[in-house]
Amino acid sequence: MPTFTVAELARRVAGVIDGDDRRVITGVASIEAAGPDDLTFIAEERYVGRIGARPPGSILVEPGLHLGVPDTSLIRVGNPYLAFAEIIPLFHPSPTARPGIAPSATMGRGVRLGDHVTIGPHVVIGDAVKIGHRTRIEPFTVVEAGVHIGDDCRIGYSCSILAGARLGDRVQLHTGVRVGADGFGYARGPMGAVKIPQIGGCLIGDDVEIGANSTVDRGALGDTVIGSRTKIDNLVHIGHNVRVGEDCMIVAQVGIAGSVRIGAGASLGGQAGISGHLTIGPGARIGAQSGVTKDVPAGADYCGFPARPFHEVMKAKAAGFRLPDALRRLSAVERELGMGSPGRAPDATDPDASEEST
Amino acid sequence: MPTFTVAELARRVAGVIDGDDRRVITGVASIEAAGPDDLTFIAEERYVGRIGARPPGSILVEPGLHLGVPDTSLIRVGNPYLAFAEIIPLFHPSPTARPGIAPSATMGRGVRLGDHVTIGPHVVIGDAVKIGHRTRIEPFTVVEAGVHIGDDCRIGYSCSILAGARLGDRVQLHTGVRVGADGFGYARGPMGAVKIPQIGGCLIGDDVEIGANSTVDRGALGDTVIGSRTKIDNLVHIGHNVRVGEDCMIVAQVGIAGSVRIGAGASLGGQAGISGHLTIGPGARIGAQSGVTKDVPAGADYCGFPARPFHEVMKAKAAGFRLPDALRRLSAVERELGMGSPGRAPDATDPDASEEST
Amino acid sequence: MPTFTVAELARRVAGVIDGDDRRVITGVASIEAAGPDDLTFIAEERYVGRIGARPPGSILVEPGLHLGVPDTSLIRVGNPYLAFAEIIPLFHPSPTARPGIAPSATMGRGVRLGDHVTIGPHVVIGDAVKIGHRTRIEPFTVVEAGVHIGDDCRIGYSCSILAGARLGDRVQLHTGVRVGADGFGYARGPMGAVKIPQIGGCLIGDDVEIGANSTVDRGALGDTVIGSRTKIDNLVHIGHNVRVGEDCMIVAQVGIAGSVRIGAGASLGGQAGISGHLTIGPGARIGAQSGVTKDVPAGADYCGFPARPFHEVMKAKAAGFRLPDALRRLSAVERELGMGSPGRAPDATDPDASEEST
Repeated sequence: MPTFTVAELARRVAGVIDGDDRRVITGVASIEAAGPDDLTFIAEERYVGRIGARPPGSILVEPGLHLGVPDTSLIRVGNPYLAFAEIIPLFHPSPTARPGIAPSATMGRGVRLGDHVTIGPHVVIGDAVKIGHRTRIEPFTVVEAGVHIGDDCRIGYSCSILAGARLGDRVQLHTGVRVGADGFGYARGPMGAVKIPQIGGCLIGDDVEIGANSTVDRGALGDTVIGSRTKIDNLVHIGHNVRVGEDCMIVAQVGIAGSVRIGAGASLGGQAGISGHLTIGPGARIGAQSGVTKDVPAGADYCGFPARPFHEVMKAKAAGFRLPDALRRLSAVERELGMGSPGRAPDATDPDASEEST
Repeated sequence: MPTFTVAELARRVAGVIDGDDRRVITGVASIEAAGPDDLTFIAEERYVGRIGARPPGSILVEPGLHLGVPDTSLIRVGNPYLAFAEIIPLFHPSPTARPGIAPSATMGRGVRLGDHVTIGPHVVIGDAVKIGHRTRIEPFTVVEAGVHIGDDCRIGYSCSILAGARLGDRVQLHTGVRVGADGFGYARGPMGAVKIPQIGGCLIGDDVEIGANSTVDRGALGDTVIGSRTKIDNLVHIGHNVRVGEDCMIVAQVGIAGSVRIGAGASLGGQAGISGHLTIGPGARIGAQSGVTKDVPAGADYCGFPARPFHEVMKAKAAGFRLPDALRRLSAVERELGMGSPGRAPDATDPDASEEST
Repeated sequence: MPTFTVAELARRVAGVIDGDDRRVITGVASIEAAGPDDLTFIAEERYVGRIGARPPGSILVEPGLHLGVPDTSLIRVGNPYLAFAEIIPLFHPSPTARPGIAPSATMGRGVRLGDHVTIGPHVVIGDAVKIGHRTRIEPFTVVEAGVHIGDDCRIGYSCSILAGARLGDRVQLHTGVRVGADGFGYARGPMGAVKIPQIGGCLIGDDVEIGANSTVDRGALGDTVIGSRTKIDNLVHIGHNVRVGEDCMIVAQVGIAGSVRIGAGASLGGQAGISGHLTIGPGARIGAQSGVTKDVPAGADYCGFPARPFHEVMKAKAAGFRLPDALRRLSAVERELGMGSPGRAPDATDPDASEEST
């Protein structure tokens, strides 16, 4: 395991040391788990209380934060979490690949490989595939004929990259990702659904990361597009002809139906669903489990089903829990005024409620 | 790339030409993207406005639609979208497979193969498997012992077809589909959950298509059944002993719990969930993200959680957004009548609401 | 197919026979499908009516249940379903594996294998992997360097077990499971999201079962932990640093965000989602499709979005369906009192409602 002094680490992130700069650090850990030989970080002051009895050897903190923790060397930086992200690889370098083509790989004709490409065991590469410098393809992955993959990509185990796909540079597909499978499109024929052949492409920008077992369908006509620097979590479904802008965050199990447009910088909470052909404006934030059934304006904060502005939904939800009582009060008012409609039970016993709770 | 005259294309779909029948078409495209050499289609009149400055060379339209677009050869047919589906493969023929068994495939004993079967590299076929004519199995797929697969099937990359499965003809499994894995069944024992061995089968009808990374579990006892011509999108979960009828449409990320019955022609919107042992009637439509907790009658249109008839849900939802105001109005009425209960805040400030929005 | 007498079967589950103990049983079946040669079970009296015209040869029932079914040998046991689970494998023994390493497997250096281990075709095992006795690894599965897997595990087809994972004994991963892929963690940098290297582990306890295509991410720092005897269904997402206790039940398509703690014996219904950093108390029950946004106390029964106690939610939902009518009644009361605010439509026509139903 590599070791570094606090001075060496501070230099890497252009930090200012507050404490002993010769202290030796042997690892990184969370604020709760970090011991005297570890570096950790504090992004917000409220986490200070999580420091344990044996304080961390070094902590990345913001310039203005005062901790009063003895025996700890602080490294002051503008963005401690970002600095921490830069330091982790010093202690945990990525396993070095051995570039080359495994004997059990199946290579098509006319494949063009950049320098230092790694093709793992049991990989299948189709005809006329182009793979950029230093890209690494893990075992059990298939790349269909004609696909282009850029430089410095990491394609995980058991991925499928189908015809019509183009991946930029530094793309990372985690294990089990499917890029370019057929979208869900059918015409109604006299004998049932007739498949619309899916012939579009699937364009993945630079620095995109896609989580395990997620699926991004190819376009029906035209292309499905994922903008550069967009990050996609596990088990996400992205339908045909969806266009996701740059710098979006799409959390696990989100489903995006066909032909949706998502503006740059938007974020979608886990398990949210977007109906087909809608537009989510740039910078919009869609809450977890939302069901979006109408366009969402730029910068808006939506949640619920059907999705509405966050504060509106929360107010309505909270009011909803006061409703059973309000119905009782309304009945009392009607009785006071002699207005109760015949046939409506005047008291609070609600047959629907008991029916629901069986 | 193949080319066709408008006359040739019209003949294929029994269409009537309105314009120059000798015009040469070199490709298909969406209404927005189609140029002077492309064929496109218009399914509904409201899409006419999407025609760009350089109009398409040819458009499939309904008999009665009048476009007033010069320099475009119309092909009039009863169902333009269906006709378009039939024409796409003329321009984009499926890649021709090279029938045969790849040297790196692992074949069991007593395997029966039809004519022109393609078994790709790194495929594993178990003992006594039967595979019909012209069926194609892509790399990294496993077919367990005793499985039967019909004629003209396309089994994608990295699929798993486990013991007890029977697939009809023209079945298409996209990459990563799991058919016949164990269902989720446990008895409560003195030392925790005890697994119920899952020994049933998984029967997939003719012309079924299943999307990437979807899972269809085998029956616990008896079979899980997917009816002919049913189409299933990506990342769908179908539990043990579910019986889906013919001609159903199941959109991405739907989850169907064990022993559910779904009638013929039903459609389930994306991310909908159906609780165990329920019956969804034939032709019912379940909205996206619905949570179905009771049987749904034939032909009904349900949505929401717990799912209720569509119009009822939408009326209640809309009313819900008027509720905070209604609570204020009710309090005002009570004050007017001198009825306000003690201890209830007479104004609209709702502590629950602010609690919710943190 | 093996056969057993009722006496032999009763002895296996310490049952008391009520009827002919020499009757020969040749298979197991559900209550609806069981015929004169089959054994079935009845867990609850209400299922008695499902017995068909040709009654089952033998039925496992509780001591006190009286059926009045002639020609059926009852076997009385305390827990009929559990006894049935024990008898199924007598009729359906697991296929016997042929221990050994397939020639097409790729083995790393320093791999330690227990006795009778089965490594299937096209498996990739990394350096210094340790695999316990009688464990079986199916084709197309990868086990990264340094992973430990216990005794008697069943690792299905096309699984990925990545660096930092440790699996206990008798773990069963179904096909397509991903254990130890990167979690979803980014710092905000000046040029967009910066990946936080994910360096933690993924600890899976004894007797854990994980369903097809589910994903359990490795910890960011520290470990993701799944407690012993916990059962996880298909297409479930478990984020980084989640800690699931022992004996939990997690139904299909559940999503658990990062750093959630779930107490022992908790159950999560299908498609439920848990927001990051929350705590679900031991024994809590979270309903299907719930969206949990706050901690849930031990033993509580929560549902809905945002999740609240079950009875509260159901009461509010049921009242919600009476709301459109209540708004009309409130308007009538206001008119009676001369209180209607100007600008508010005095009748029940709700423009929002019609807007929603388009």
